[in-house]
This record gives sequence, C-alpha cells and structure tokens, in this order.
Amino acid sequence: MTAEIKLAAPQGYQALNVDTVTTYLAGLKTITARLGGDESGWKAREVGDGNLNLVFIVEGPAGAVVVKQALPYVRLVGESWPLPLSRAHYEYLALVEQGMWAAEYVPALYHHDKAMALTVMEYLTPHIILRKGLVQGERTRKWRTHIGTFLARTLFHTSDFHLSPEEKREKIGAYLTNTAMCKISEDLIFDEPYFDAPMNRHTTPQLDDIALAFRQDTDLKMAVQELKYRFMNAPEALLHGDLHTGSVMVTEADTRVIDPEFAFFGPMGFDIGAILANLFMAVFAQPGLSGGDSEHALWAGAQSEILWDHFVSEFSALWQGRSSGESYNTRLYDDAPELAEQALATRLEAIWNDALGFAGCKMIRRILGLAHVEDFEAIENQDIRGACEIRALEFARRLILERGEFKGMADILRALA
Amino acid sequence: MTAEIKLAAPQGYQALNVDTVTTYLAGLKTITARLGGDESGWKAREVGDGNLNLVFIVEGPAGAVVVKQALPYVRLVGESWPLPLSRAHYEYLALVEQGMWAAEYVPALYHHDKAMALTVMEYLTPHIILRKGLVQGERTRKWRTHIGTFLARTLFHTSDFHLSPEEKREKIGAYLTNTAMCKISEDLIFDEPYFDAPMNRHTTPQLDDIALAFRQDTDLKMAVQELKYRFMNAPEALLHGDLHTGSVMVTEADTRVIDPEFAFFGPMGFDIGAILANLFMAVFAQPGLSGGDSEHALWAGAQSEILWDHFVSEFSALWQGRSSGESYNTRLYDDAPELAEQALATRLEAIWNDALGFAGCKMIRRILGLAHVEDFEAIENQDIRGACEIRALEFARRLILERGEFKGMADILRALA
Repeated sequence: MTAEIKLAAPQGYQALNVDTVTTYLAGLKTITARLGGDESGWKAREVGDGNLNLVFIVEGPAGAVVVKQALPYVRLVGESWPLPLSRAHYEYLALVEQGMWAAEYVPALYHHDKAMALTVMEYLTPHIILRKGLVQGERTRKWRTHIGTFLARTLFHTSDFHLSPEEKREKIGAYLTNTAMCKISEDLIFDEPYFDAPMNRHTTPQLDDIALAFRQDTDLKMAVQELKYRFMNAPEALLHGDLHTGSVMVTEADTRVIDPEFAFFGPMGFDIGAILANLFMAVFAQPGLSGGDSEHALWAGAQSEILWDHFVSEFSALWQGRSSGESYNTRLYDDAPELAEQALATRLEAIWNDALGFAGCKMIRRILGLAHVEDFEAIENQDIRGACEIRALEFARRLILERGEFKGMADILRALA
Repeated sequence: MTAEIKLAAPQGYQALNVDTVTTYLAGLKTITARLGGDESGWKAREVGDGNLNLVFIVEGPAGAVVVKQALPYVRLVGESWPLPLSRAHYEYLALVEQGMWAAEYVPALYHHDKAMALTVMEYLTPHIILRKGLVQGERTRKWRTHIGTFLARTLFHTSDFHLSPEEKREKIGAYLTNTAMCKISEDLIFDEPYFDAPMNRHTTPQLDDIALAFRQDTDLKMAVQELKYRFMNAPEALLHGDLHTGSVMVTEADTRVIDPEFAFFGPMGFDIGAILANLFMAVFAQPGLSGGDSEHALWAGAQSEILWDHFVSEFSALWQGRSSGESYNTRLYDDAPELAEQALATRLEAIWNDALGFAGCKMIRRILGLAHVEDFEAIENQDIRGACEIRALEFARRLILERGEFKGMADILRALA
C-alpha cells in the first residue's frame, strides 16, 4: 500500500508504506536491536483497521514492533477531511502519562518522532481487540478489573485530588490544542445524530422512524447538549477520550489500553461512559449475532458491573490515601473528619451520573451517526439488527433522560435484562 | 514613598515611586502629549488602597493618567508573601478583551509594559469607588444596569455560545498560567474561613461562636468545597475574577469596572456572585453604619434585583441573536425550534444557582477570612458590627446550602428584608 499524500504536510513528514517503514526503523539503533539482524530480514505489514491512521507490524528475527503513524486526513473518509498530524503527539503524551500511573495497562513505548507523527511501540501478541472477543462470545475476564484500575489511577492522578494547581494547569495546557480531535467528538457524538447530517447512516428502513423521532425529540437533544457543554467545560482529569472496546487489547491475563489520540482534560465520566456504552452495546447485539445467546448477553452486562465496582474501590483507596491535591484539601478535615468520606461519595455520584449520560450519547452516535461498531454491523439480517439497535437506542435515551433513576449497576442490569 | 524591593524581580522590572514614575512617563511620547508640557510640570501621588499594587495618579497641565504597577509581593501582607508580577499582564489582557465587548465600562488603556508589570490608563474622575458610595448612603443608579450589561457581554462573548473551540482554547491558554492569582481565591475564599488559618480574623468575641460553628459545619464545608471544585473545573468564560464593589468606579452617569488581575476562565456565576455578595453585604451593614437606615438597606437590595434582571435580558438578547459558537449549535434547531429558548433558560438557571453559591462563599470569606470590607469595618461599635455580620453569615450559609429554594430575586429580597 502506498499512501499518496496530496495535502500539505509539515516539513519532515512523509507517510510510510510497507517498504519505507523498515528503512525508517533501520535508522533507529534501539529498534534495530529489538528486531534483530538487519533490514533485509524484516517483514512489515500494514494492519490499520481504525478510522484514522496507518499501523504497521514489523517483525525481525529477534522480535517485533508496532509503528503507528498519523495521516494528515481521516482515513475512514479520505483526503477531503484533513486532520492535524499533531494528534500523534498528544497520543504519545497521553501514553507517557498513563504509563506513569498504569504502566501494566498500556503498551511500552520505544520511540516517538513528532515530525513524522509516528510512535514505535510494543507489539502486543497474542492479544485480541476486546470488541472482537465480545462479538465472538469469548469470555476473557481480567480486563474488567484491569480497566477499572486503569480508569481509577489515570483519572485520579491527573485531577485536583492529586495534582497541585500548577501541575494541573501545565498538563491542561499541554493538551489544550488537541482541538481538532475534541471537535470530532463534539460534532459526531453530540450534534450530528440529532440533525440530518450528510455522513449519518442507520439501518434503513428499520430505524427510519426512531432516527427521525430522535431528531425531533427536544428533551433528548437538550439533555445531550447539556452533556456536550459539560464535555467542553469540565477539565477534571486527563481522559483517554475514546475508550471503547476497540481501544482495548486483551488476553486472558493481560489488558492494554491503546489509541489515546483524543486525549484531553475533560469530565471523568466521559471515559467511564465510553467503556460502559460499548459493553451495553455488546449486550444488545448478542441476541442478533450468529451464535449469540442470552446467557452471553447477561455475562457481558455483568462485566460492566464488575468494572464499575472495581473502579469505585480503586478510586476510593486512592482518595483515602491521598496527601496532595487542592480539591477537598485535607487541611479541612481536622474539625470535620467525616468530610473526606462525604466528599468521595459526592464525587463518585457525580461521576456515575456523568458516565450514564455520556454512555447514552456514545450508544446513539454508534447507531445513528457516522461511525458504527462491529457488534451491530456483524448482524447480517437487517430486521434482526434493526430490532437490536432499537432496543439499544431506547435504553440509551433512558440513560440520558432518566439517569437519576439508575442508582447503581443493579438498576442498570435490570434494565438491560 | 519608596518601595524597596528585596525579592528577586525579573530583569527590566523596577518598582516606581512618585519621583521615578514621572521620569518613566516622560519616555513615552503618547503619554507626554496627554499630560502636556514636560516632566517638570507633572505631579504624581501614590493612591493605591488595594491589597496588591502601586497606583499613581500623574497630572500635567493638559491631563492626567493613572499608572498601575504590580509589586512582586502582596502589599497587604508584605514581602513575606511573594506574588508573580505576571498578574499585571493578565490584567492588561483582560482589560483589552473586556474592552472589545464593553468598551464603555472599562478604563481606556494608554500603555502596557510587560517587564515593568505596569499599565498606564485613563484617570477616572470624578468617579468614586462604588463601595464607598454604598457605605456613605449615596444612590447613584446607572451602575446597576451598566454592570448587568458588562457581565452579559463579557461572559457571553468569551464562552462557547460565541467563540469557536479554537478561539476559546487559545484564550483559555492565555490565562491558564495566572495560577498564583487563582490560588489566592482558592485558598482565601473556599478553604481558609473553614479552618483555623493563621491569617483569619473576625470581630471577636462576638463572632467566636459562629466562626467555630462554621469550621465544624460539615454540610457547609462540603458545599463550599463543591463550589471550589466548580471554580477550578468549569472554564465557561473569561471572568473578571474579583468583581466586588471596590472594583467598580462610578459617577451618576458613568460606570467603569477596574482591576481584573484575577482574570481566568471559570464559571460565569462566579463574577455574578461576587457583585451580588457585595451588594448583599452593603444591605446587612446599613443598620450599623452611622447615618445608615433601613430604607437605604432596602434600596441597596433592590439594586441587586435590577442588576440581575438586566444581566438576564442582555444575555438573552445576545443568545437570541447568536450566529456562532459550538454549544447548543444552531444547526440543531431546524427540527426543534423551541430548543433555543429551553437551552437559554437552562443555562440561566445554572448561572443563577452558581451565582448564589459563590455569593455565599464571598460573603463568608469577607467576615471570617483575611480580607475584610469597608461596609462592615466602618461600623465602629463591635457589638453592632458583630450583629450585622452574624446576620450576613447566616444569610450566606442559606445561599450556599439552600440555594435551590431561592427561585428568583424576589425570594432573595424577602430573605434580605
């Protein structure tokens, strides 16, 4: 594959292909040592199946690496939709930050080249994409607590519960100009599903009525716009920004969160809502999938409860052990020791509430917007797929408009069943 | 007065005094023209009565200017409390931004010198500080609608209702490092009144009991910490950051908002709450002031209603006329035209709610914290002052904990009466 770049790209940038990627790596001593031998013995293949980037796996006699390179446009759409290469640098910064707090749950980093918008990192094998596992009915288990831990540690340590104001503002500044990626989320998640946007698509004619009804549903649109306002105006912590089940690679024992190129400082509930939304979609898709069954749907739903519970217990442990951060400053506890617990409970409730709202938005955009998910796409029969999607949409609408009624995961599981 | 600076100050900085300020101005052609004649005919006096800076009035045969220069420490406390000179630059940036949207309500700017942490601006005369007028029972009237307009225009035009995400993020970035000033607010408004902080002071022994009760009041501390969290995590718009009645200069016809050195992107309700808090304190202080009367207290309270109502009508007019901004994007209105009005109402309600909470915090910090206000300080009899302050504290606590019960200004006025 040769990626021919017509768009103006900054000096020093050149999109690689399976031939040039090995030449590029040959110039990097640490990578050469890792692959073993020399360039002539290396094999590269392009495996990018996402919406945005080039991804190469390069194998040598001694080992393998992944090379991820941004393209100056949205791969899913083409060169008509330019997208800044800078996202590769934000992704790298986020991987470094996440690595400080949750090293075991992110890929190891070997090399970053800002001008080339490229990062060389650990080749994860025999990992599979969590979404594929869920679609195929596989039941790896460790990822549910691993992701709970990943979320608790990365969100807590980049918030005002841990950082000083100076540190936090410096970090906010580092991601502030990842504007183009945030704009994609703002448009595709919160706006486009709710008007007749040219790139929207849905299972038709089965979803025509509900798609139209959602576009005319003022209460829903209003609540979604409030969530968008919160997305844009709540820099609580460094978010992954796109934490769906396609951004998680798993084996039975190991879990890695990849692709944080949408990283920015936003509301904690957004990352949690993203992963929950995708687990909920796995539940709704199960009855339609070949080999899918209600028992597996039930199992997928239960994973979301374990994930959330684990997040809560890890986040609470970090809170109880905290010795820094300016929010709910510990100097206030002397005369009111119960404040610490009350504050934690209030914050967790706010995160829960946000998470449900954002989860609803994330589900709707995957069914009525531009980018869809394999869970539903893998259902070949349109009528069956449509029926699954309609159930998911109705549940998503409840998550957004009636989220106050879901007091905990038990309520969610009842509604999913 | 000679300000002798022992702290390390950046190269190019030198604190001015009444002798050196004229020499400095003599080097600026535009200022020389404005003052008329030459340095030998100019007279300078230092009039800074605030907590932080040097302020000179320099008069020449043709006119006068004000020179405001930051000191590298908190003037109120002394050199033991260093404070970055950069605040002078943030103040200048904010004055320029506010001048774009509300030129008639800010002083004209003549010169800014970043290294000297100094701005030369319009000498406002015969203006008086609004707080002094209120304490003295004067009833200038125009400021109440002027401030409502100032708030509506500056908050609206620096928010996601007007700016593009790129523009907003660039502006957020420009103020992001005004950390030291935000930290003063975070400490002095939200934390210190609620523990035994060394610099706290209050009317003693009259307020000893209530001060202790507030420090042990978990519900109150919790609600205040939630407001602090919001102060730190809601960059809705560019705030003045310190909009009390001492930051407003008035004549019968003219109003100017000065001193935005605490400028940062925060929750809109914070600026509104600040001015309301100070009007409420004027109400509570009236009965204790020599010459004070209940009729004037009533009048002062009524001004807060006029100010808020005017803010609402100006903000609503801007909203209805908007053609840009990404929040509640107008492209969503085709299928649901009522969304625009509903969204405006929701946002105004959120601003109102924040404003009351922040107003409560601002009142408490002025009575139990480090920096007090002339309204109460001017009451010489300690028992009378204490009684006024206790009423104000009890009202402030209600604003924070029961603000949902105040549906509008009519409810506030009833509680103030």
